[in-house]
Amino acid sequence: MQQRSERTRARLVGAAGELFDRHGYAQASLGDISRIAGVSKGALYFHFESKQELATAVQEAGCRLLEETVLALCREGRPALQTLIDTTHALAVWASTDPIVRAAFRLGRERAGGDRPVLNYHLVCSATAGRLLGRAAEEGALRPDVTEDAARTLVAGMVAGIEAAAWSGAPHPEIAAQLGQSWELVLRAIAEEHARRDLRTAPPAAHRPEPVAG
Amino acid sequence: MQQRSERTRARLVGAAGELFDRHGYAQASLGDISRIAGVSKGALYFHFESKQELATAVQEAGCRLLEETVLALCREGRPALQTLIDTTHALAVWASTDPIVRAAFRLGRERAGGDRPVLNYHLVCSATAGRLLGRAAEEGALRPDVTEDAARTLVAGMVAGIEAAAWSGAPHPEIAAQLGQSWELVLRAIAEEHARRDLRTAPPAAHRPEPVAG
Repeated sequence: MQQRSERTRARLVGAAGELFDRHGYAQASLGDISRIAGVSKGALYFHFESKQELATAVQEAGCRLLEETVLALCREGRPALQTLIDTTHALAVWASTDPIVRAAFRLGRERAGGDRPVLNYHLVCSATAGRLLGRAAEEGALRPDVTEDAARTLVAGMVAGIEAAAWSGAPHPEIAAQLGQSWELVLRAIAEEHARRDLRTAPPAAHRPEPVAG
Repeated sequence: MQQRSERTRARLVGAAGELFDRHGYAQASLGDISRIAGVSKGALYFHFESKQELATAVQEAGCRLLEETVLALCREGRPALQTLIDTTHALAVWASTDPIVRAAFRLGRERAGGDRPVLNYHLVCSATAGRLLGRAAEEGALRPDVTEDAARTLVAGMVAGIEAAAWSGAPHPEIAAQLGQSWELVLRAIAEEHARRDLRTAPPAAHRPEPVAG
């Protein structure tokens, strides 16, 4: 029973993500969301009191995806800079294809400036980058004359650039290639020579476009 | 008579910029725009057939401001990289304080994906950066192993980062300081040693916050 309730909630969050991504916060209607989720409006209101609550749930789902991905990457035991590079490549995939993450970015903008504080996905990404850069500094991978703050701003800019490019409709392989090129430049500026040697700036295999079968 | 008509048009574009910036494309109403501009709805329709046309006029005004600023900076005869740095500092001011530029960014997002192609202010900024980086390469200021394309992506990311930070409500002095720090890192990665020596990464005097009178 609880499982079924959780599945319904997840379906609602998924449908809300799709519609917030496509139409924005103001234009997405709760009626359309419950219809696409295939649940009654009563069931929607059982799980979420308002559109605001549903939007917050979508943004939290986007944050959770980011957190879990970073945790899984950390467990692989690679240098913190490699984890950071791979996290930005995951963001590049999501910004192109994942309605939840696209909606999380969009909702952070569209719901800003209201009465209550709202999750801002750019700031969440930037904070994550800051933590990984702190670990990179502990690992001795950052050049001593580079402040973590300056490096974090630069990485936050890369993430904002990914999101803007995806929003402009640039295809993911192009964004991934540009991200790899950007990392080559950024590593030159922030990373110690010895730390750069073993870092891979291209997307990890899992994110590479499938080769076309011949 | 023509002058008066042009003033009315400019007032409409200004009011539209304010409302598109504050409420977004879908939520801004032509009634509110004509009221804030202090002109009749008939006068609005004399100048603009539709909200789409008015939104395009706002975006074009944002593009013109960018073009004119770059032209004025170019006339000062500084190295292309300095012109590029100063252009990003101008964008940092506008992203915090200028409704036309803020609306131009926002409209580019919100109107994307419709039937007709729409100006995208991120792409306009990126193209401008590309032109200035091309000139910097001609001036021998770029490191030979840096492609203009990779450098342009990185600068486009900085601009997207500025816009995201301004949208998050970060105050301009903070954004300007972070932008200066980012440029220190980016120049290290892309510019020849001899070219970097004379570049100023802090905002030009005109954009610095007023010192508090003691």
